[in-house]
Amino acid sequence: MKILLIHGANINWVGKRQPEIYGTVTIAEIDQAIRAHAASRGVELEIFQSNSEGTVIDRIYNAVSEGVDALVMNPGGFTYASYALRDTLLGVQIPYIEVHLSNLCARKIDSVQGEAAKGIVMGLGSYGYLLAIDAAIHRVKERQN
Amino acid sequence: MKILLIHGANINWVGKRQPEIYGTVTIAEIDQAIRAHAASRGVELEIFQSNSEGTVIDRIYNAVSEGVDALVMNPGGFTYASYALRDTLLGVQIPYIEVHLSNLCARKIDSVQGEAAKGIVMGLGSYGYLLAIDAAIHRVKERQN
Amino acid sequence: MKILLIHGANINWVGKRQPEIYGTVTIAEIDQAIRAHAASRGVELEIFQSNSEGTVIDRIYNAVSEGVDALVMNPGGFTYASYALRDTLLGVQIPYIEVHLSNLCARKIDSVQGEAAKGIVMGLGSYGYLLAIDAAIHRVKERQN
Amino acid sequence: MKILLIHGANINWVGKRQPEIYGTVTIAEIDQAIRAHAASRGVELEIFQSNSEGTVIDRIYNAVSEGVDALVMNPGGFTYASYALRDTLLGVQIPYIEVHLSNLCARKIDSVQGEAAKGIVMGLGSYGYLLAIDAAIHRVKERQN
Amino acid sequence: MKILLIHGANINWVGKRQPEIYGTVTIAEIDQAIRAHAASRGVELEIFQSNSEGTVIDRIYNAVSEGVDALVMNPGGFTYASYALRDTLLGVQIPYIEVHLSNLCARKIDSVQGEAAKGIVMGLGSYGYLLAIDAAIHRVKERQN
Amino acid sequence: MKILLIHGANINWVGKRQPEIYGTVTIAEIDQAIRAHAASRGVELEIFQSNSEGTVIDRIYNAVSEGVDALVMNPGGFTYASYALRDTLLGVQIPYIEVHLSNLCARKIDSVQGEAAKGIVMGLGSYGYLLAIDAAIHRVKERQN
Amino acid sequence: MKILLIHGANINWVGKRQPEIYGTVTIAEIDQAIRAHAASRGVELEIFQSNSEGTVIDRIYNAVSEGVDALVMNPGGFTYASYALRDTLLGVQIPYIEVHLSNLCARKIDSVQGEAAKGIVMGLGSYGYLLAIDAAIHRVKERQN
Amino acid sequence: MKILLIHGANINWVGKRQPEIYGTVTIAEIDQAIRAHAASRGVELEIFQSNSEGTVIDRIYNAVSEGVDALVMNPGGFTYASYALRDTLLGVQIPYIEVHLSNLCARKIDSVQGEAAKGIVMGLGSYGYLLAIDAAIHRVKERQN
Amino acid sequence: MKILLIHGANINWVGKRQPEIYGTVTIAEIDQAIRAHAASRGVELEIFQSNSEGTVIDRIYNAVSEGVDALVMNPGGFTYASYALRDTLLGVQIPYIEVHLSNLCARKIDSVQGEAAKGIVMGLGSYGYLLAIDAAIHRVKERQN
Amino acid sequence: MKILLIHGANINWVGKRQPEIYGTVTIAEIDQAIRAHAASRGVELEIFQSNSEGTVIDRIYNAVSEGVDALVMNPGGFTYASYALRDTLLGVQIPYIEVHLSNLCARKIDSVQGEAAKGIVMGLGSYGYLLAIDAAIHRVKERQN
Amino acid sequence: MKILLIHGANINWVGKRQPEIYGTVTIAEIDQAIRAHAASRGVELEIFQSNSEGTVIDRIYNAVSEGVDALVMNPGGFTYASYALRDTLLGVQIPYIEVHLSNLCARKIDSVQGEAAKGIVMGLGSYGYLLAIDAAIHRVKERQN
Amino acid sequence: MKILLIHGANINWVGKRQPEIYGTVTIAEIDQAIRAHAASRGVELEIFQSNSEGTVIDRIYNAVSEGVDALVMNPGGFTYASYALRDTLLGVQIPYIEVHLSNLCARKIDSVQGEAAKGIVMGLGSYGYLLAIDAAIHRVKERQN
Repeated sequence: MKILLIHGANINWVGKRQPEIYGTVTIAEIDQAIRAHAASRGVELEIFQSNSEGTVIDRIYNAVSEGVDALVMNPGGFTYASYALRDTLLGVQIPYIEVHLSNLCARKIDSVQGEAAKGIVMGLGSYGYLLAIDAAIHRVKERQN
Repeated sequence: MKILLIHGANINWVGKRQPEIYGTVTIAEIDQAIRAHAASRGVELEIFQSNSEGTVIDRIYNAVSEGVDALVMNPGGFTYASYALRDTLLGVQIPYIEVHLSNLCARKIDSVQGEAAKGIVMGLGSYGYLLAIDAAIHRVKERQN
Repeated sequence: MKILLIHGANINWVGKRQPEIYGTVTIAEIDQAIRAHAASRGVELEIFQSNSEGTVIDRIYNAVSEGVDALVMNPGGFTYASYALRDTLLGVQIPYIEVHLSNLCARKIDSVQGEAAKGIVMGLGSYGYLLAIDAAIHRVKERQN
Repeated sequence: MKILLIHGANINWVGKRQPEIYGTVTIAEIDQAIRAHAASRGVELEIFQSNSEGTVIDRIYNAVSEGVDALVMNPGGFTYASYALRDTLLGVQIPYIEVHLSNLCARKIDSVQGEAAKGIVMGLGSYGYLLAIDAAIHRVKERQN
Repeated sequence: MKILLIHGANINWVGKRQPEIYGTVTIAEIDQAIRAHAASRGVELEIFQSNSEGTVIDRIYNAVSEGVDALVMNPGGFTYASYALRDTLLGVQIPYIEVHLSNLCARKIDSVQGEAAKGIVMGLGSYGYLLAIDAAIHRVKERQN
Repeated sequence: MKILLIHGANINWVGKRQPEIYGTVTIAEIDQAIRAHAASRGVELEIFQSNSEGTVIDRIYNAVSEGVDALVMNPGGFTYASYALRDTLLGVQIPYIEVHLSNLCARKIDSVQGEAAKGIVMGLGSYGYLLAIDAAIHRVKERQN
Repeated sequence: MKILLIHGANINWVGKRQPEIYGTVTIAEIDQAIRAHAASRGVELEIFQSNSEGTVIDRIYNAVSEGVDALVMNPGGFTYASYALRDTLLGVQIPYIEVHLSNLCARKIDSVQGEAAKGIVMGLGSYGYLLAIDAAIHRVKERQN
Repeated sequence: MKILLIHGANINWVGKRQPEIYGTVTIAEIDQAIRAHAASRGVELEIFQSNSEGTVIDRIYNAVSEGVDALVMNPGGFTYASYALRDTLLGVQIPYIEVHLSNLCARKIDSVQGEAAKGIVMGLGSYGYLLAIDAAIHRVKERQN
Repeated sequence: MKILLIHGANINWVGKRQPEIYGTVTIAEIDQAIRAHAASRGVELEIFQSNSEGTVIDRIYNAVSEGVDALVMNPGGFTYASYALRDTLLGVQIPYIEVHLSNLCARKIDSVQGEAAKGIVMGLGSYGYLLAIDAAIHRVKERQN
Repeated sequence: MKILLIHGANINWVGKRQPEIYGTVTIAEIDQAIRAHAASRGVELEIFQSNSEGTVIDRIYNAVSEGVDALVMNPGGFTYASYALRDTLLGVQIPYIEVHLSNLCARKIDSVQGEAAKGIVMGLGSYGYLLAIDAAIHRVKERQN
Repeated sequence: MKILLIHGANINWVGKRQPEIYGTVTIAEIDQAIRAHAASRGVELEIFQSNSEGTVIDRIYNAVSEGVDALVMNPGGFTYASYALRDTLLGVQIPYIEVHLSNLCARKIDSVQGEAAKGIVMGLGSYGYLLAIDAAIHRVKERQN
Repeated sequence: MKILLIHGANINWVGKRQPEIYGTVTIAEIDQAIRAHAASRGVELEIFQSNSEGTVIDRIYNAVSEGVDALVMNPGGFTYASYALRDTLLGVQIPYIEVHLSNLCARKIDSVQGEAAKGIVMGLGSYGYLLAIDAAIHRVKERQN
């Protein structure tokens, strides 16, 4: 099983910006924990980061050709108004699980891409990525049955 | 570790009503799966259901005296406008994880209690309860360190 | 044919409060007229009143087990914000006819439960209950064909 | 007792347009049922249809001279924004009962003329016209006492 | 003179929850001060608390039969969306004085029941209950003249 | 100088409907006073009434061919949503003075046609028509200089 | 008969500012025309101008003691948000006629004081003051009958 | 193939009113160009104009009996609020192409009838009618396959 | 202890205007009762009234130099939109108690200055001033401890 | 004559995504038809697709240097919130024709770029591109005269 | 060159109130720095402060007669709702530069007078006054060329 | 001291597009003036332009590594809806000064990035860039103390 995990705009900076919201653990440390978790679950994982919406859209279309089984994404700065990205997610057939480090509900923020998600995990910090990997595996297996 | 899992209004009817949204698995079957999962994690679990907001509020205040470590709740019909329940959750010191069977974001519904949650899992059907148990355990351990 | 008629919050006080809107006929007198009408139509009728939303939800779930054929309800004080009650009505398969003594449209009030109704009668005072009984019988017969 | 029943804009087309909302019974068949019901109640009934708001307004003013006792109307396409018609209904002294084939409340539509009604019946299909005739007779008798 | 003082949802927890808003004095200590004040004014006082809206509504209707002269209430968690409770207060003839520990105006919160009050005291902490008792006595005397 | 005075929808009923807003003087009596005033000013006056927006639009286009110098209109029921009539008034070159018997500002009503007016007089009852005639004469003379 | 005519904020500058809206005739010239018109009608007239809301409020209260029969005011810059001035006008018993040089309706501006007026004249430039004087006289005479 | 082209309210005045928006070519000249274009395409064309919404609604219902294949309409003044006309278009089975001389999008105007259209052409002046004729032919042929 | 009591715009007219809202007791009589109450409490009291917002702001800044201990104010006509006055109250360190004769909550009015208050008393007529004096004394004593 | 045709975000996926809205014809087939049409009209055509807003903006600025005569664009996913693209289109002097496969009006979607268009064609599926080419040629010729 | 610098409502208190927003430098110290800066630029400067909107309006009209070349103003408490002051600034021909100590954009506050400004400087504390003086000089020189 | 000045989307076209808003001076000429000003202040300046939001975000993150001391940016087309860019600016620790050529306040446009700015200068044309350089230097020096 192949999973593509995408960090959206500004996630490269996690651990350095607004630590009162996002904590001080860096994205490199988080990625290491995610890779370990994916390995323990026996899935192939690629992690991808970009600050450009168009680049992420292209990456997702390529994932279709590559036979990726599931997408996990923290849209970061794309959360607020990236409708083109949402339409891409609605269009491709790969199940998509969305992650947010913080609790968007408590911060009164709506996610534009959330509408396209098969599941959403939020407010659990970097631990949420691990649950999202589990959720993605769950969704792919459900589909295979 | 003791966890109290609450099913809010109308959850007693899951499996019978609006199966196109909530599926056909009954709440009794779901509860069985949750209990098995909690047992495998080695935590003590109580499951409680009520259609009355005041009864749920009273149950939560009692949980404080009983030394419950974490709350997991699917607010069900309380999601839309039960502000008193939200205030109860904000007031007690027990970590609260919220679960929804469906994707509220895609259905354009805001959860009134979500603001009080330490984590939210949504859109994964009954599997979300299992992730929420994991999230609750994670939150309690974090707190103990 | 069995019909359950529910009076929601504050309907126990009809005839005593806000007579300029609801008239001075008491709820006991109204109930007597409704029973006479139901008898003349040959249907079995139970009348139930409660000021607690959760109690009404429980009563409706019990009605399913009892084989009630139709619900008639004046939601009273539940009209404004009782979403859990609406979800209950959407979930059960019993046809539901809604009654309001006053004209909500003229008073610019939206009924939260109205969305779940198979028919609504409003603005005709207590006479509206009699038409609602007729409408409920009509709906049940339609269904039987 | 004389009742004028008005079908507003597009009601001439009932049975042909949007059958998933309004059913396939034609307006001619409905009118036949209404006439039979009125006859069984012993009231004189005229049925009038027009797609022009001004024509309906004129008809209503003429009804005053003719001594019509009650108006029953399905405003049809006038429901949304015909304020002049509403003012006419507010101005004349004849009791007005409003009918809608579908449940406006469930469809989130407000009726502009509803404010002027002495009673509203909605969501019961063509059967609603029969209840509206009963409601109109009830209102006229109430007035005579 | 008999006064019924009602503490709404979550007020049982005052002194334990959100002390930065509500202070650390417990509800038991506050009740003691209120009773002392009422005694000094020579009025009979009952204090009642519940987290269920329906239970409070029932209590108020009973107060009418008991001949209670005035109601003082801090609606607590009912403040936000309990319309049925508001309608009860509008319907009964007993003067109602509303109290809030904090300044709702500064916190941009509207009270649903405030519309039914003969007087409102807010932002003065538990001292506000004492002024509310004085206001209730004043209203009852005004009425007797 | 030729002035065309138009009474819009429902003005034919002034004196009979909603007398608490519009008074009990009939439109025939008002027209007599307007004609006397116009005569005293030496202007030729035609008074026209219709409940159909299209008929009023046609009348205004004809007025252009007839060489009418000014329009005075009380739009009545057209005030709320008759945009086509507004566009007609914006398109023709004849100065237009608007009259309302009641004070729309106090009643929180916006006039759709008001945007096209060279002057508006409101809240002065039927006396407002006389001032409007004066205003129309004033506008025509201004234009001739 | 004594009339007090008030020019609100910025009216002292009429003829010098925004001539595309207000024209180039100065306020001194306008006042001369108003005085001539009042003299021809045989009424005593005082004209008062201030840029301070409080000063205008004081002037109006003094007018009550002086026995002024009617107020005519162009609120000028007070139009948008001077609620205290509106309350003053609602409180005193002197009939108030409002004037605006331009057509507020076409400019999509609501007048805060308009709610308190017995009549409003707008969009006719300085000629509107003359009509307002006539309207004020008419209102006073109506009152004396 | 028979096409009915309808000019809505005020289109009779095109070339005379608001030339800065609609140009100075008269409706007669435009009609001539449309007829020539239809002839070159080999379709039968009728052009109809009315300022009354009800008349247009009647004309469309007649078109059904006459076997008209497609409707092209510039709703003109009906664009803003003619919901009855929209309902007519939604009800009949004839494909409808909408034309606007100006760019409604740039002018921030929503078309009420646009919802019923099979295609919309706007902002191209009178040339837009020719494209709309082509679009109508295209739609009819599509349907015949 | 020194208290400054401020009556805002139009309060000089209490007892004469809108008696159905504010009663018929004059401001002079109310002031007499307030002075008696303050004397009975042993506090020094100054009463100040102005219809000009700037004058009230200046008075408050002077109160700081004079060592005034608490402010009590009924903002009257300043309630709706006097933001500068609110900022003054937020800036000075003197505790501020707000009074309203009527129940703003029932009248759906928000107080702009309420955000700056340490306590608010409303809906109790002139008796509210006496409670506000008590509240001010309570606040000053609290502060001294 | 040179025309640049731009497909915005997600248009590359037409024929694969949401076929119930956009149909099953692929973009490659559509492009072939567009090229054939352009050739038959004797114009030089370039087709460009990108999912990145900035890339499209750059492409448009380059078009100015290349002497492109007209732009035709289906903004696709940019329709909802791409204000920078709108400003680019407003700034360059090349006429711009907008195309949408579906009827935005029926779907209640506003196009941000529509404000900058010289013409809009919508709801005609891929046939709309052919009309847009004709419209672009028409606009360029108009300009050359 | 003569510049008039105006401090609006509450600016007299800068350095004493809300230091977390406005800092602790007093207005006297700020004025000294402004005067030094103006002297270094060779311009004549007057500084004026008032808490009354009407007084500021009068001061600005006087500035026209005195031949003042530019206005610099920090509207302070007038920022929120002083429309009369805005109209004054729109009416006079003197260039107006607006200053705010804090960043209104970050605080989500709109300035009513900002619409009339030839330039705005915000968020730079008292240093912003110096830039505003430079901007005013720049605007006056631009105008002289 | 090193300053990075960024021109956002469409600023490359300044002097060519919408000259009635932005003037005819080209961006090359403006850049020359900015460089001269920076040199006179003794600061190192880099100017950067891009039409892609992602590219600008990357450039800002690089600026952190390069030790840039301050950012000055005219967001241009990014002003309206680029939330990702705003989050970048909120996250990095470099002081940011925002510039707009026109007065956004008068044009009723809100800047999304303005919330992140330490100062904003608007409405002064290209001269605003010079003041922004001064403001940036001022902010850096303040920080060094």
